[in-house]
Order: sequence, then C-alpha cells, then structure tokens
Amino acid sequence: MSTSHTFSGNPLDRGDRERRDDEWIARRSGDAASRFLPMRDLNVPVSEADGAGLVWLSGEERERLELTAQPLFLGLLNGTAHFVVDVSKADGAARELDQDGRFRYVDARSATELLDAASCGIVAQARAQVDWHARNGFCPQCGSTTTMARGGQTRHCPGCGAIHYPRTDPVVITAVHSGDWCLLGQSRGRGTGSNRYSALAGFVDQGESIEEAVAREIMEESGIAVKNVRYHSSQPWPFPSSLMIGCLAEAATTEISADDEEMSDVRWFHRDVVVSALDGGSNELTLPAPLAIAHHIIRAWALPHSQD
Amino acid sequence: MSTSHTFSGNPLDRGDRERRDDEWIARRSGDAASRFLPMRDLNVPVSEADGAGLVWLSGEERERLELTAQPLFLGLLNGTAHFVVDVSKADGAARELDQDGRFRYVDARSATELLDAASCGIVAQARAQVDWHARNGFCPQCGSTTTMARGGQTRHCPGCGAIHYPRTDPVVITAVHSGDWCLLGQSRGRGTGSNRYSALAGFVDQGESIEEAVAREIMEESGIAVKNVRYHSSQPWPFPSSLMIGCLAEAATTEISADDEEMSDVRWFHRDVVVSALDGGSNELTLPAPLAIAHHIIRAWALPHSQD
Repeated sequence: MSTSHTFSGNPLDRGDRERRDDEWIARRSGDAASRFLPMRDLNVPVSEADGAGLVWLSGEERERLELTAQPLFLGLLNGTAHFVVDVSKADGAARELDQDGRFRYVDARSATELLDAASCGIVAQARAQVDWHARNGFCPQCGSTTTMARGGQTRHCPGCGAIHYPRTDPVVITAVHSGDWCLLGQSRGRGTGSNRYSALAGFVDQGESIEEAVAREIMEESGIAVKNVRYHSSQPWPFPSSLMIGCLAEAATTEISADDEEMSDVRWFHRDVVVSALDGGSNELTLPAPLAIAHHIIRAWALPHSQD
Repeated sequence: MSTSHTFSGNPLDRGDRERRDDEWIARRSGDAASRFLPMRDLNVPVSEADGAGLVWLSGEERERLELTAQPLFLGLLNGTAHFVVDVSKADGAARELDQDGRFRYVDARSATELLDAASCGIVAQARAQVDWHARNGFCPQCGSTTTMARGGQTRHCPGCGAIHYPRTDPVVITAVHSGDWCLLGQSRGRGTGSNRYSALAGFVDQGESIEEAVAREIMEESGIAVKNVRYHSSQPWPFPSSLMIGCLAEAATTEISADDEEMSDVRWFHRDVVVSALDGGSNELTLPAPLAIAHHIIRAWALPHSQD
C-alpha cells in the first residue's frame, strides 16, 4: 500500500543547519546561481513547454526585475539554494511575469494536475510558507510588527522578544466502517444536494490525542461512536497549512444523528457503491479524487488488498 | 499494547454544538451549578484531602470572589458545564485561594503524579487553552486587540474580521532501531553530561507528511537515514500545546553524525541496556518516565510482546 500522497515528496533538503546562519542566507539569496520561485496571490508559475514544470528565476533575473520582497528559503537541491519570492505586491513587469506567455500562474490544486510529485511537494511547502508570512506580520502576544528571520523559518518580535514559528494544523480524517458499510458525509456549502460525499474530518483540539480527536469528531458530526481507531497515512495539505492524518475506525453504533449545522447529510454507503465510486462509475456517489487522502483511506477499507 | 498516554482521557464532552451559542455560554458561566477550575500562572489547584483531586469552585464561590476574568468553557460532564478561569491577574483573596491550605497550586507535570487519568486529561486541555489565550491577545494579521468568542474556542479580530483558532503543534518522536540497537539522543541544555537520553523528536514542518518529518528530523539530528516509518500512538503534550506523534523506524544507515548545535550527544544503545533502563535499573542510561510517550515507543521496540 502506498502511503505517499500528493504534496508529499518534496526533494529539497530544508537546510536546517544552513538557515541558522544569517550570512549564509543573505549570500545565497544574492547569489546568481540560486533559484527563485515567483508566487503570485498564492499561485505558482507553471510552464507547459517541453513537459510541464515549475518556473524558477535565476538570481540575475530576480535582480533585473527588482524583486525586493524578502525571499523565503525553501531548501537545497544538489547544492543549489531554492527560494520562493512573493510577487503579489510587486510592480509592473515583476508582477506581470506571465505576460509574455512563457508560463501561467495556477493555483496549487490545479498545479497537481500538471506537475510531477517532487514539484507538488515544493508547491505545498512554498504555498504554506508564503501564506503564513503574509498573515503573520504582527506579534499575537504584544501587537508589534514582526520581522522574518532564519530565511523564513521564524518571525521575531522586537517588542517582546517572542519568536514565532509557522503553524501546521493537524486534522483527523477517518473512514468509519461497520461490516460492509462505510460512513460518509457532506459538509454544508460543499456540494449540498449533489452526490458528493467524503470521509468525516476535523481539526485536532488542544489536549487530545489523534485517537480522541477521531472519536470526538465522528461523534459530533454523525452521532456514531467508534472503536479500534487505526492510523493509515498522512498528507500535507497546504490550504492553508494542514497536516491530514488519515485513519480507519470501526463503528460501535449504527444510528446516525447528524450535526445539521456543519453537515448537510451523513449516511452509510454499501461497499459495492463505494467500490464503483472509487473508479468514478457510480451515479449514486461521487468520492474525492486521488489527490485527497480521503480517497485512499476509503479505498483502504473498500479494497484492502488492492495495490493503491 | 496500550495507546492511552498521560494527558489523554479527558472525560468532558467539549460541547461543540453548545459553545456556538453565545447565550448558552453566558447563561452557564453565570450558573451556580457550573464548576470553575481556578488556574494560576498555568498551575492547577490540587487537594490532597480524601485522595488527590482537582479543586473546582462553584458558581457562587466564583461570584463571591469576584473572579472577573472571562471563563473558558472546557466541556460538559453529566450535564454540568465545566470552565477554567485564569486567576493569575486576580487581586487579593482570589489570587491567594490556596492560602488557607485547602489545596495547593502545582504545575501540570507534577499534577500527573497526584491525579487520575481523567483529571490529567482536563489539566492538559485547560493548560493549553489558558496559555493560548494569554499569548494571543493581538491579531497576527493586523495587530488589533482580539476578543474571546465561542466560550474560548476562538478569538475574533474586530479590525480585520479574522477568526483565530487555538494552535496545536504536531511533533514527531521516533524510536529508530537497527537490529539490537536503538538510536537515542541528548538535547543541548537538557541533561548534558548526565546519562539521560530519549528518542529523537522535532516539529512537523509546513508541507511535509508525518513520515517525511520523521526522516528529516532523524537525518538532521543524527545523520541517520530511516525506512519503514511506522506510527505507534499519540499524546497531547500541553507544554504549551503539542501533539506528540510517536513512531518507530528502521535505520537504513548506522554511522552517526550528530547536530552539535541541537544535540550534546546521539548514540546507539544495546537492547539489554535499554531494557534495564526502562525498569530504572541501568547506571549507563536513564530514559524518560512513563509520563512521556518516548518511554512507550522505546518500550514497544525493546519489549514488543510486553503488555504496556
């Protein structure tokens, strides 16, 4: 069974030792040999010439374009430093790099349909990191303006001295099953009235284990009690920065009492319907695409012996 | 094998539906029948009369003491609403509730030696939640002063409209093994020069899976490559608010190259030494106590058939 999902597979060495050295970061971010990924409004540049790929600027191009936004260090590949630079607030040519048609900016989700696994992994890191800096310019502890440090790995507060790290939010997502039946739900606002269903999910709260979060979320959303929670695999999900923790669990009860505020429907689906839906051949049920870990945990239950 | 660690086992129903209702929260926080856990400087009140237990104030006591700090809703138990109220900034009698010797304030770690599992679970939630509110009075997006909402489940920003949720930081901790040998390390500043070692650990970065975080952290701290990463169990760790994700992994290499800045030592320990240390009987090695998930993942490797 494969446990490597879309957005995993980032080949960059994050350079934990190197990025502690401010001089090293400054030198490499001014180096002509370094590579810079321009990101605009959280979209990434994809070229479709000669097979799709991410578009990186050289240090010279970055200088010529006067991209003054502080680059975030992503990591090293074969000794070359890779950065992402947010051009959302750049002027003229620097913001309109896509104007000559050499590439186009696409959102991270669409990019997964064009790029290889390694590039998708880089996109996940870059999107989460740029978004976090864009939304964390102030110190939550004292309100002062913070500054980026360690190549983007932290933000420092000159007011109270706090050091802030990017946040990653753990989310549990679970395929709950009872014999030949699987519990699937439809969130409000997401495909209400359609035949789109997915595994139930929610953020891990403070002070609970993964297994407790699974039991609480399933109970809250469906009224079903679970037992034997089993970890399956995990996936980085950069919208904006979740860690999806995929689990399987057995239902200990069967009567659904859905949370009407969060869910528009929760119901049991028979394995035959789920198997058809996994291959896209069911009128009754549409499941998430293989992009999402939901697809794989549902498949792991429905077709436990298949090579995923 | 038990997968329920200290700080798991919180019996409260977090009342996801109830806490969306501001009026319900207001009514219950003014209700004489509700219970309030006074927390001071992140320490919890423990009474040792008639067996150790957490000390809860009634709604009447809270009113009489003029505890005006906004209580945070923890959850429901048998229909009774439970809150935590931070008395760190209270005046006189309200801050010195322990003065009559009825109970004493102890830190969350020491409390685990006095309290039952259910109470420790409540302590984990209360400590993480109080600490988060204390350190998040300002909006990281715009710098405005934020206000608590939904009984403490969120903070709202009147400046930019952002809604902020408490943060939980996923941490991977891994027992890496190679035949009869286990890789353990000693962090700088923590017991340097002693015989105290533990499993290697680190925060999950943005854009990586649990399995990738394990491989990166082990490589960074020890220079060892790993394969076959396997999830074991998880533990809430309220210092200040981590989710410990315990794993086992096989070493793919054996030569250690430790990160001298973070680690004062990393080395291989033989299973016999580890087994003695787990029972507290080794002069060569001291391992974390059963309080910590580290103890249990190391035990799961060293004594895979023991009932933990």
